[in-house]
Amino acid sequence: MLNRKTAEQLGVHSGDRVTIKTLSKNPKQIATLVDTIESGIRHDHISVSSEIKKILSLRENQTIDVSFSVPPISVSYIKKKLMGEKLTSIEIRQIIEDIVSNTLSEPEVAVFISGMYKNGMVFEETVALVNAILYSGETLGLKNKFVVDKHCIGGIAGNRTTPIVVAICAANGLIMPKTSSRAITSAAGTADCIETIAPVEFSMEKLKKIVKKAGACLTWGGALGMVPADSIIIKVEKMLKLDPEAQLLASIMSKKLAASSKYILIDIPYGNGAKVTKSRGLRLKKKFEKLGMHFKVKVKCVLTRTDEPIGNGVGPALEMIDVMKVLNNKKESPKDLEDKSVYLAGLILEMTGKIKKGKGAKLARETLASGAAWKKFGEIIKAQKGKTKDPTVGKYTHDVCAPKSGKIKTIDNKQINYLARVAGCPLDKKSGVYLHHHVNDKVKNCDVLLTIYAESKPRLEEALKYYESTHPIKI
Amino acid sequence: MLNRKTAEQLGVHSGDRVTIKTLSKNPKQIATLVDTIESGIRHDHISVSSEIKKILSLRENQTIDVSFSVPPISVSYIKKKLMGEKLTSIEIRQIIEDIVSNTLSEPEVAVFISGMYKNGMVFEETVALVNAILYSGETLGLKNKFVVDKHCIGGIAGNRTTPIVVAICAANGLIMPKTSSRAITSAAGTADCIETIAPVEFSMEKLKKIVKKAGACLTWGGALGMVPADSIIIKVEKMLKLDPEAQLLASIMSKKLAASSKYILIDIPYGNGAKVTKSRGLRLKKKFEKLGMHFKVKVKCVLTRTDEPIGNGVGPALEMIDVMKVLNNKKESPKDLEDKSVYLAGLILEMTGKIKKGKGAKLARETLASGAAWKKFGEIIKAQKGKTKDPTVGKYTHDVCAPKSGKIKTIDNKQINYLARVAGCPLDKKSGVYLHHHVNDKVKNCDVLLTIYAESKPRLEEALKYYESTHPIKI
Repeated sequence: MLNRKTAEQLGVHSGDRVTIKTLSKNPKQIATLVDTIESGIRHDHISVSSEIKKILSLRENQTIDVSFSVPPISVSYIKKKLMGEKLTSIEIRQIIEDIVSNTLSEPEVAVFISGMYKNGMVFEETVALVNAILYSGETLGLKNKFVVDKHCIGGIAGNRTTPIVVAICAANGLIMPKTSSRAITSAAGTADCIETIAPVEFSMEKLKKIVKKAGACLTWGGALGMVPADSIIIKVEKMLKLDPEAQLLASIMSKKLAASSKYILIDIPYGNGAKVTKSRGLRLKKKFEKLGMHFKVKVKCVLTRTDEPIGNGVGPALEMIDVMKVLNNKKESPKDLEDKSVYLAGLILEMTGKIKKGKGAKLARETLASGAAWKKFGEIIKAQKGKTKDPTVGKYTHDVCAPKSGKIKTIDNKQINYLARVAGCPLDKKSGVYLHHHVNDKVKNCDVLLTIYAESKPRLEEALKYYESTHPIKI
Repeated sequence: MLNRKTAEQLGVHSGDRVTIKTLSKNPKQIATLVDTIESGIRHDHISVSSEIKKILSLRENQTIDVSFSVPPISVSYIKKKLMGEKLTSIEIRQIIEDIVSNTLSEPEVAVFISGMYKNGMVFEETVALVNAILYSGETLGLKNKFVVDKHCIGGIAGNRTTPIVVAICAANGLIMPKTSSRAITSAAGTADCIETIAPVEFSMEKLKKIVKKAGACLTWGGALGMVPADSIIIKVEKMLKLDPEAQLLASIMSKKLAASSKYILIDIPYGNGAKVTKSRGLRLKKKFEKLGMHFKVKVKCVLTRTDEPIGNGVGPALEMIDVMKVLNNKKESPKDLEDKSVYLAGLILEMTGKIKKGKGAKLARETLASGAAWKKFGEIIKAQKGKTKDPTVGKYTHDVCAPKSGKIKTIDNKQINYLARVAGCPLDKKSGVYLHHHVNDKVKNCDVLLTIYAESKPRLEEALKYYESTHPIKI
């Protein structure tokens, strides 16, 4: 970005592609797009993004060379993919490099996503994409052979098993450097939830210290610079609501490999309102397991049937409260969330050989009941300089009551998710939805079905309006 | 756009979709995306784009209603097209409406372009696209049956026949309300050239007055709000360097229909360095003529073989100087440009029946020689409040000399075009390239081959560097 006057003198226009080059002995260089502004930048100065600053190792006021450049060759590879051709690993590597260096614009990334979405990618391309995304960023570099990870492809409101699974596994001596994402299309991501009680943004060095101290962490992956290409692609995918399978596979695999994982459990929920159908889930399972073989890590996928939200809270703070109830063995804790977490943690314990097959769930349940998981969770949160205290919730609330007596037939997962988003999730952390009942519960006329929480009155009103236009709970 | 503090109080986040609604009896409404800024907008105020202001007929400080809204249905139509399905005319109309109202983001438009590019559109879809783009804006509404137009699909450097053709046709009593585009990927568009001697941005009312007075105009189409959807799509196409055929057809046809044209001549240059091959040109010809039949206007396409730039100047000011030399019968005027203009103008005169077949070119040549075309051109420019005086050219110049004696074998059209762009075209109007020789000319060692004009030293240096790395003229 540069001052409009400097730009005029240089003859540079907004949108021009330029190459920025350091003047050192071994010059580094990068291509990017120019933006001009009226004021705020001094004459003969340029301002660069933090990504570029990092890549070129720039200091403030460092002298650099800026020259015009031609469109990158990766534009033609993107076109090739759109037209249905197979890309080589070199071509994929170049696209990812140009995405990370900001050489490709968001609309160009949108065409790449369109091409992957329309034409798919064969196994070799997916492997190349994993490698390209992986090498675009930093890796954790842990040598321990008991490094484990779990992942959920998402889509189920309130399904916050991760902190519970991490606490159980770490309490049993497994190393679990869990980096999570923020919400993309859902009401909350694990990172959004943890952030209601502890910081989640750490440098790679800090993260290593936390894992060394507590045996695990619950942090945001985006702050680490681990897979920067992935973050940019996901940002555009989110705008487009397109989620190509190859990118889904590569995004998850590259993050797990960057975190040094040796055992990876992937939860694929299917059913009404889930992201995928059973058959697509089975296809994903096959592909994940094949990728695991290729990269020499143990990958296990479980398909979990889910037709309604899991847990009671939907939204960062409300989900965190649920999670802590389960970990702390509170009587009113959501049993469905506890059962699913115990099931997943048990599978990881079995995968690593810490306990023999068929006994994992029992060990996981004991780890919860004994308070060992709660203790471990406290250690992790303390290492991240947080506190295991219930977060506050939105001050604007509205109880939605049952319009008649009867049995709850369905709770639409997608609509509950979107309801929480209209209420302000994921940015307004205290906002969300609390479900007082689940499917098959009997309710009386005027019983409270759910409570909406918001941080502003207009958001609350919008959420209520959305509820009334959809009625996600059928009695 | 709104103040960050107002946004926080309302619970609105950057990127949220909102509906803006007027409070009048017959409320108008539009959906758009929110942006928040630190300062510059007062509390409880919003700032909207001029497009939205126009669509909702807003005044400053008018009170309006802003509410959250869900993603538009057109997102799913765009996805449908990407997956290769045929769109209905209602779906196409909705996409175009949402593009114009800024409800769809640039990356979403990029996916629509990708879908059209990958899968093409059948005739019915193209017709629907023409109608949708046409109805998205205003039309000129001229009733005269001798309204004519010409169009060139572009790609040939220096090929500035339009002002000459317009002057010849108007001098013979045809009505030619010519609205042109600015350069997309070339060094100059007709609007960029005319702007070096006269204003080109007029309201629809002003434009009608100019046409009434002079019988023709030479203005920029973008200022009229005639086909706003087209402008937005072209902006994104330009970023992507993707040019889907259906959009090319619809873009041209909708503009001609909006300008009330009854006779349309389309110039399709093909050959080395042209935009299209002969076979693709013939395909385009067929499709244009079929669209003409559908919309009940006479469309004629001519394929013109072109292997090198036409005229001597490449760039807004330099091309305008060429055009005026031809119109003013100057001895040193570029004959190739004159010949092509006479050919095209002759065809239009024949199409309308102003003269019988085979005699058009003769009449066109006479109109030039008699000074009638020059006089008409002067009237048009005067009506637009301009002056027929040679524009100034860039003060930084460099003569490129022949490295040896011999005959010029080829002049690479694309590279000359790009050379002019590196020199600053189209934004720096005085910049560009002047060709002192054409293909088959004999040159001596050290004869000047071309002169580069720029408005800044770095641009001149970059252009020279580009010239040296490509050598677009082969001896």
